[in-house]
Amino acid sequence: MKARIKITLKNGVLDPQGKAIQGALGALGFSGVDDVRQGKYIEVALAEMDEAKAKDAVERMCKDLLANTVIENYSYELVS
Amino acid sequence: MKARIKITLKNGVLDPQGKAIQGALGALGFSGVDDVRQGKYIEVALAEMDEAKAKDAVERMCKDLLANTVIENYSYELVS
Repeated sequence: MKARIKITLKNGVLDPQGKAIQGALGALGFSGVDDVRQGKYIEVALAEMDEAKAKDAVERMCKDLLANTVIENYSYELVS
Repeated sequence: MKARIKITLKNGVLDPQGKAIQGALGALGFSGVDDVRQGKYIEVALAEMDEAKAKDAVERMCKDLLANTVIENYSYELVS
């Protein structure tokens, strides 16, 4: 199975990288950009074929390594 | 509208960051991780409410700034 994981900063956490992108978009002439937030996207290919077990593993991966749950949220979807 | 943009490395492009995550997952005891690819996830809040115009703007943002189309693919979805 493959897990598609999105890791985003929690609301209220400063995102200088997003602000930099927002500034660059403005400099390139894109108007009407209200906000930009940058996160991470991680694809993990798993040998596990059982959906419940894969979900459990991905949940632990996010908590233990991929996301800093103090400042980040994570969400994921599993595709076979 | 809000654009949710995923930027991923094209197949065949080396991804040392993904390999580092894969190694760290192995060191943490997660077995059966066949591959890890890291990409970027960017949320852009647009003042534009017309879907066609927003799509056009996001397409240009991806090509001009957000993605390096030589080595990266991008995909996005628009939500209101």
